[in-house]
Amino acid sequence: MRFAVLGTGIVGRTLAGRLSSLGHEVVIGTRDPEATLARQDKDRAGNPPISAWLSEHPQVRLLPYAEVGAFADHVVNATSGDGTLPALEAVGAAHLVGKIIIDVANPLDFSQGFPPALDPVNTDSLAEQIQRAFPEARVVKTLNTMNTLVMVEPTRVPGPHSVFVSGDDAEAKKTVTALLESIGWPADEIYDLGDVTTARGSEMTFALWVRLYGAFGDGDFNFHIQRAPRSA
Amino acid sequence: MRFAVLGTGIVGRTLAGRLSSLGHEVVIGTRDPEATLARQDKDRAGNPPISAWLSEHPQVRLLPYAEVGAFADHVVNATSGDGTLPALEAVGAAHLVGKIIIDVANPLDFSQGFPPALDPVNTDSLAEQIQRAFPEARVVKTLNTMNTLVMVEPTRVPGPHSVFVSGDDAEAKKTVTALLESIGWPADEIYDLGDVTTARGSEMTFALWVRLYGAFGDGDFNFHIQRAPRSA
Repeated sequence: MRFAVLGTGIVGRTLAGRLSSLGHEVVIGTRDPEATLARQDKDRAGNPPISAWLSEHPQVRLLPYAEVGAFADHVVNATSGDGTLPALEAVGAAHLVGKIIIDVANPLDFSQGFPPALDPVNTDSLAEQIQRAFPEARVVKTLNTMNTLVMVEPTRVPGPHSVFVSGDDAEAKKTVTALLESIGWPADEIYDLGDVTTARGSEMTFALWVRLYGAFGDGDFNFHIQRAPRSA
Repeated sequence: MRFAVLGTGIVGRTLAGRLSSLGHEVVIGTRDPEATLARQDKDRAGNPPISAWLSEHPQVRLLPYAEVGAFADHVVNATSGDGTLPALEAVGAAHLVGKIIIDVANPLDFSQGFPPALDPVNTDSLAEQIQRAFPEARVVKTLNTMNTLVMVEPTRVPGPHSVFVSGDDAEAKKTVTALLESIGWPADEIYDLGDVTTARGSEMTFALWVRLYGAFGDGDFNFHIQRAPRSA
């Protein structure tokens, strides 16, 4: 498949690298590739600039948002929450018709400091905002409840742990579920929460995740849904 | 210990019964015991009236809020979220000085239907509201991330699963942690999230919990924090 990953941060590049390693064709979208490539500083988390990453991943091309839509079958939203709608607008609604938008972002709101709050939250979600803004795209929320490294390598955290899927389009969720399995997620740990409004549930889990991250000092953990055996 | 459980619903009575079975002295607080006892209908979930429950648990007394404070060492908040502050006001601030308020409630907001949203949420929490309103009490948020039956009988869900503790007072959290262990929670599954503001994290988990409850059709599940082994 051909993927356009939006966002050059650690989430975008980690997902792009993993999808590429699985044999998919991958481009990373950014607003202004020239400006993005000119950055030579490490980011706040100490990650090297995207230029260094790209030189190690020559099969992944960096393109302006406006050019990724013609290339890609599917779009992965790995932008920061407040950059999501502008990025998708720059991709262009016409390029998103019928396509799956795999939304792995959380709408982090740093306006009141750390840990960030969420905006939107509670009675709305980023996934719903995207679906409303691009009604002809097929939004699937997933992978937004864990650290990036766990997203692409679930065995990094040993033992059973879970991933969630939300979206209105059953066929799109089936495609994304198969993709999650190809990444290494066990089928019985992929939970379909329901329609796109259920993304409120997975997005709001961030509030617990970030505090556990603070308590642990690392992101090598994940939520597992432990269920009683069913009598059925 | 002597506990006052606020709230006569399924959460309050289940916790009251369990605390009583552990040998504690327990009263249940309600606004108007006479009116509460007069109710003979099952609740929406099909639970029998509190009068039937009390006749099976004669060691637990039903008292007006105003009378439970003089009796209890600790208060358990098992009221509905919007009933919490009025209930605690009826107990009386003077009766809460120095006491632990174990807050197991979530501030459910049904104003937009089912599943409920939360209010407060995101930049505030019910636990913080209680702590602000009763600064001389010691609020500990816990047990609010699971079904009532799982709260009091963790082995109902086999395998490892977790419970969270939030609060400003370290000594109070220690007391509550010991109480959780006496209920059956393994010490290594009790996570101290930090100060009372971290209750936002556990309260917001409700948004995922309620959707899993919808997907599963039952509440016999819980969150487990799966961690990678630490090198320390």
